[in-house]
Amino acid sequence: MSTIITPRTLSGFMELAPQEQVLFEHIKNVLESTYKSFGFFPIDTPVLEYSEILLAKAGGETEKQIYRFNKGDTDLTMRFDLTVPLAKYVAKNQGEISFPFRRYQIGKVYRGERAQKGRFREFYQADIDIIGDGELSIINDAEMPSIIYNVFNKLGIEDFTFRINNRKILYGLFEMYDYSDKVTDILRVIDKFDKIGLENVLKELEEIGVGGDAVADIVSLLTMQGTDKEKLAALKAHVGKNELFDTGVEELTQVLYYIGRFGVPAKNYKIDLTIARGLDYYTGTVYETTINKHPEIGSVCSGGRYDNLAAYYTKKQLPGVGMSIGLTRLFYILNEYKYINEKLKSPIDVLLIPMTDDMSKAVETAAVIRSSGINIQTYLEDKKFKQKLAYANKLSIPYCIFIGESEIESNLLTVKDMNTGEQQSLTVEECISTIKNGIDEINSEKCVIIPE
Amino acid sequence: MSTIITPRTLSGFMELAPQEQVLFEHIKNVLESTYKSFGFFPIDTPVLEYSEILLAKAGGETEKQIYRFNKGDTDLTMRFDLTVPLAKYVAKNQGEISFPFRRYQIGKVYRGERAQKGRFREFYQADIDIIGDGELSIINDAEMPSIIYNVFNKLGIEDFTFRINNRKILYGLFEMYDYSDKVTDILRVIDKFDKIGLENVLKELEEIGVGGDAVADIVSLLTMQGTDKEKLAALKAHVGKNELFDTGVEELTQVLYYIGRFGVPAKNYKIDLTIARGLDYYTGTVYETTINKHPEIGSVCSGGRYDNLAAYYTKKQLPGVGMSIGLTRLFYILNEYKYINEKLKSPIDVLLIPMTDDMSKAVETAAVIRSSGINIQTYLEDKKFKQKLAYANKLSIPYCIFIGESEIESNLLTVKDMNTGEQQSLTVEECISTIKNGIDEINSEKCVIIPE
Repeated sequence: MSTIITPRTLSGFMELAPQEQVLFEHIKNVLESTYKSFGFFPIDTPVLEYSEILLAKAGGETEKQIYRFNKGDTDLTMRFDLTVPLAKYVAKNQGEISFPFRRYQIGKVYRGERAQKGRFREFYQADIDIIGDGELSIINDAEMPSIIYNVFNKLGIEDFTFRINNRKILYGLFEMYDYSDKVTDILRVIDKFDKIGLENVLKELEEIGVGGDAVADIVSLLTMQGTDKEKLAALKAHVGKNELFDTGVEELTQVLYYIGRFGVPAKNYKIDLTIARGLDYYTGTVYETTINKHPEIGSVCSGGRYDNLAAYYTKKQLPGVGMSIGLTRLFYILNEYKYINEKLKSPIDVLLIPMTDDMSKAVETAAVIRSSGINIQTYLEDKKFKQKLAYANKLSIPYCIFIGESEIESNLLTVKDMNTGEQQSLTVEECISTIKNGIDEINSEKCVIIPE
Repeated sequence: MSTIITPRTLSGFMELAPQEQVLFEHIKNVLESTYKSFGFFPIDTPVLEYSEILLAKAGGETEKQIYRFNKGDTDLTMRFDLTVPLAKYVAKNQGEISFPFRRYQIGKVYRGERAQKGRFREFYQADIDIIGDGELSIINDAEMPSIIYNVFNKLGIEDFTFRINNRKILYGLFEMYDYSDKVTDILRVIDKFDKIGLENVLKELEEIGVGGDAVADIVSLLTMQGTDKEKLAALKAHVGKNELFDTGVEELTQVLYYIGRFGVPAKNYKIDLTIARGLDYYTGTVYETTINKHPEIGSVCSGGRYDNLAAYYTKKQLPGVGMSIGLTRLFYILNEYKYINEKLKSPIDVLLIPMTDDMSKAVETAAVIRSSGINIQTYLEDKKFKQKLAYANKLSIPYCIFIGESEIESNLLTVKDMNTGEQQSLTVEECISTIKNGIDEINSEKCVIIPE
């Protein structure tokens, strides 16, 4: 070969080294198994769709960021989220779907954002949604965060807070004061409360022509400090003036009532009346999730309730509620902070090292050990013993088994625990149970360790 | 919403209904867990790459079929296989990789083939490769089919045959007879032996100017019937005339010696000297895999040995051996033949049906059952009892649990086995063990059932 092309990956496209990939897979598996444990169906939609389908709603910013091209006469777009494909999927398969339809999807999406550290153009989203046919109980809105609570807890992320609001409360409140036409602008400003503080919020509101005592009253209600109970009481004081507001308060009360029963501890959730979420399809409950030690990261899992998922594709009314984890970004952040548990980086439990020229006995023994559920590689190359051990060390493989003439004769295996250095002569059965215990201990470790 | 866009998916892009997707996931999981059990690392490369990278080698047919486009100034291509991205990955990460590098990748690839039943434009490949640094033992070539044997066996596909050859034998043989310059054409013809028979092979060879007694001798050697032992003996009769041929025979002998030791029964493999595999990067062992009942499907898992994986991206010599399952096509075929085990189509083990207005007890009980490893959905909608049961039936959920006033009072759960219709009053612990036994039984079933 005369010319060498420098091997490189597109900027903004995460490509992990082998051992990092193993850690990523561990995290992905926790999400998937937890979603499944709550009775969600997997779905898998194409990466490419007709542009007409994916862009039915989009416009402005979204259009600029998409990967869109023609192949022959077909105008194609790479999916930029998993929600639009879900809407299409449900509309298309409505005859075969039983509602409420609980689905998860973990897949790559594409956005041509400006390249920047920690910003990805190809990234995994891990979504759960529950779609109803015509109606969907508000109790689902309380179950959603409990699923994510289980995910984070199993990962090892414990000190985080769901911030919960209901957009009906916000819309209703502004209707009460005749600000309906400016709601989007107002919400955008209030959403910044955490970053810029009360004074600046009021100033910015005044700049967009929303000022005076009434607004100050609303803002101080939305930004009030206190327990959830106190916040609900303050909201209830305004009940009776606006139907939308009243419904919002009732829904929020219900969500708060059930979320604890779904097993989320009180320390992990709170009402935050300032969050609104940018996407305008949310119509009720909205969520954000903050890792308390790292508010600068922003929300690591967001979502909410929407009245009608698939209005562009069907006349059927399909309300839903969903939450989404930006998996690639979450992994990137946890990795940057060195919070990921390195002990889990080997996919291989045992390296079996043959010490004889004929590897028959080694190969046959590996098959027996493997059939007990242990991940085992037989080292087949003709290298020095030292190099074979170095290979096991470099891959962080926790156990080695040696099979030489004496092992074949005695029918015992030499097993080395690579962490302690301890070496034992064991029968195959003893060997399997020793290794299984060790592996179980490693696998009981959580993926993420965030120091206090 | 005024206009409705008909929800549709691009032709050649598989999008499964929820319960079919569950079956697909079962099959995918068997592949993945088996690959892992042999000590393979997962890797995940981008769907999009620089065209320069992916098309370093391609030309002709490949170029025509690819999805290639510009985004800004960047010339992009969607990956059309997982081998070229692997070559780039290994060249790029060679400093971090320990060799031999065993990796699997199950991912979507894109080819703009003519739309046709059973042909896909977006499809999963499920690849395993072992890459050596400078050299790689021939024993790996015997281990490869044993991994696929394990995959097929766990799936429930038992009556299949690996057909194994070594291209060095073919090249060497034609070198012996001074046909080196026509080898590619000759192999293409011989590859058709199964379809067109001996006579037509000889006729076509004559048409491309390869005729005479010598060729007839070669062809009759390559197409001889008999046991592997007889075939090896016939080959060995020609040893000593051509170095490449001799190496090929020696390699094939080694592969045959070890494949049985790796646990592949004799009925599942045989030498087939007519297979050559189209791709010209194979340099030694080549494999095809036929489901014996369905030769018309062609090979369901193919691969081989290559001398130098990443010659376009690095000067490092990286020999390897790999096999690939076309997962989307395999699923499509098994589904068409109705070979997929329908019993596995529910991802949900239990539907818990609350019979009281307040669902607190139901929700709390579901959490306890879930924590024992059972996938459980709580039915949260306000529907009639009959509708709730119909939902469980439509989703093929094997168990229902009812919690009403009397269950709350007695602290017993009513459990219904949806297959037998049997209903029992059980404590939570009894309930968990009953359901776990039932679920284990279902999950011990194989994904694929091919009747005799």
